[in-house]
Amino acid sequence: MKKYVIGIDLGGTKILSAIVDGGGNIICRVKIPTESHLGKNAVIEKLKSSVASLLMISKLSLDDIKAIGIAAPGPILTGKGMILNPPNLPGWKKVPLKAILEKAFRKKIFIENDADAAAVSERMFGAGRGSKNMIYITVSTGIGGGVIIDGKLYRGTVGGAGEAGHMMIKFDGRKCGCGNLGCLEAMASGTSMARIASELLKKNKSSNIPRYAEDGKITALSVELAARAGDKLAKDIIDKEAFYLGIGVSNLVNLFAPDIVVLGGGVMNMADLLLKKIISTVKKCALSPSREHVRIVRAKLKHDVGVLGAAAICLQAQ
Amino acid sequence: MKKYVIGIDLGGTKILSAIVDGGGNIICRVKIPTESHLGKNAVIEKLKSSVASLLMISKLSLDDIKAIGIAAPGPILTGKGMILNPPNLPGWKKVPLKAILEKAFRKKIFIENDADAAAVSERMFGAGRGSKNMIYITVSTGIGGGVIIDGKLYRGTVGGAGEAGHMMIKFDGRKCGCGNLGCLEAMASGTSMARIASELLKKNKSSNIPRYAEDGKITALSVELAARAGDKLAKDIIDKEAFYLGIGVSNLVNLFAPDIVVLGGGVMNMADLLLKKIISTVKKCALSPSREHVRIVRAKLKHDVGVLGAAAICLQAQ
Repeated sequence: MKKYVIGIDLGGTKILSAIVDGGGNIICRVKIPTESHLGKNAVIEKLKSSVASLLMISKLSLDDIKAIGIAAPGPILTGKGMILNPPNLPGWKKVPLKAILEKAFRKKIFIENDADAAAVSERMFGAGRGSKNMIYITVSTGIGGGVIIDGKLYRGTVGGAGEAGHMMIKFDGRKCGCGNLGCLEAMASGTSMARIASELLKKNKSSNIPRYAEDGKITALSVELAARAGDKLAKDIIDKEAFYLGIGVSNLVNLFAPDIVVLGGGVMNMADLLLKKIISTVKKCALSPSREHVRIVRAKLKHDVGVLGAAAICLQAQ
Repeated sequence: MKKYVIGIDLGGTKILSAIVDGGGNIICRVKIPTESHLGKNAVIEKLKSSVASLLMISKLSLDDIKAIGIAAPGPILTGKGMILNPPNLPGWKKVPLKAILEKAFRKKIFIENDADAAAVSERMFGAGRGSKNMIYITVSTGIGGGVIIDGKLYRGTVGGAGEAGHMMIKFDGRKCGCGNLGCLEAMASGTSMARIASELLKKNKSSNIPRYAEDGKITALSVELAARAGDKLAKDIIDKEAFYLGIGVSNLVNLFAPDIVVLGGGVMNMADLLLKKIISTVKKCALSPSREHVRIVRAKLKHDVGVLGAAAICLQAQ
């Protein structure tokens, strides 16, 4: 009997893959760089060799594998398993990844938007376990989201639901990569936190943020470390960050009235500095009765959220 | 056999009620003023006498009625049929309307948020017929919304989902009745259109909007009529209105990826002046592939949307 699935997290910088059993336990894992500049075909070869490596390490054969799930950067036409044109995978345009891998492996292949896969992952194995209606947000280089309704991933009619990062919270605000102004991503992603810090530092020469620069670059981590060391400007930036996220989450609570909002992604490594203000903003800005009922928590799964999500999609589909 | 249901639209100014058959046909209707200043008990008596009048006119008896549905102003605890504290019904606070009317009529009673009832109505009998995932927005004195997922009303975990009017699109924008800044309602409701016009008229003495004042008051209708007569300022205000609504709808498309967005409410009487810009804003601001697939249309049902919605809730539940 086929007891295992393979979950692959195809990111812009690395490909994580794992063999996962029906209980969500990782049997073994492989991590390789994506090197997306080598082009689409090279990356697809890397996906294939990841699977081969996993089988070699685990001493399993392809016959032991029920299905392969891939969490990939959006936009994706989920039904067709087609990757459209993700900014993180330059040169990819309408790539029928599902069909390509089905041909290669003769297995069921599931392709899912990475934030959606992470949402399913947190719902099945993480902070949202047992929840009915859940919103997942990942705050990282960008901001993504996933929507669980009645325990199941909600994709919308043609996919693409839950794009919380491109909800405009200030339509005359900062410019977003998508071309709009004031998207949540443009206001509150890690990238945007770093950018805001760099701008403010031009006028504020007393801040210690530059001491924590990484390779001469101000990042969200620089701001975090400076704040932890008591820097006033860094604390203010983090306070604003929490406010922006609080506005975004308030909107989501007013629209989805979920039982739980789960916040993940690299920026949430400073959850201890952010969550209190995010929650107080939602308690102030969202409407009754949802605001009293909703729980707002940090995601539980760390680096494995993607592979587990991709695996969970396979497990759910069986 | 009980072939009929009663739908009641409990508004701040009027109570509309109707006997409706299983096909959504209105058999007869009654309209009386709410006179909400007379207090909660007086209004509840009016609800009861509306039912009595309907039965008298139709020569039906309560035995012919399957259930009574009421579309009421939110917030509501739907499961309990409890009306919390709607701004439009002053003095109401945690009123167990469902229990009160069940006792009075010994019938199944359904209480639904008015915008949610209207969403069900448009989905069942109006512009959203046959749609899978639908967002309904009513743009009127305030702005309300309803969410249909997989053909069914989505209420969220404890009710209150789809509060599109209180999605903040500019968190430092105009003050909203809910206390927040820059809610869609504060930027784009009929009330806010009138307020914006009044403010701009202080600086613009050449506009003809004041000619169309109603009882000396500038309203959304004044702006509409002036725009139709070619007034530049009025046209600009309507253009902004369409932009704000376009931003709101873009956010909803990015979050729900619906097949259709249905726009109703009094302000949509000027749909011919608004829809083109709303649609072009969404086509520009929402993400692919949802923006290509979503249809954005005007609601079909006019004054009957509430009673038909209340009736539809009864029919769906049977």
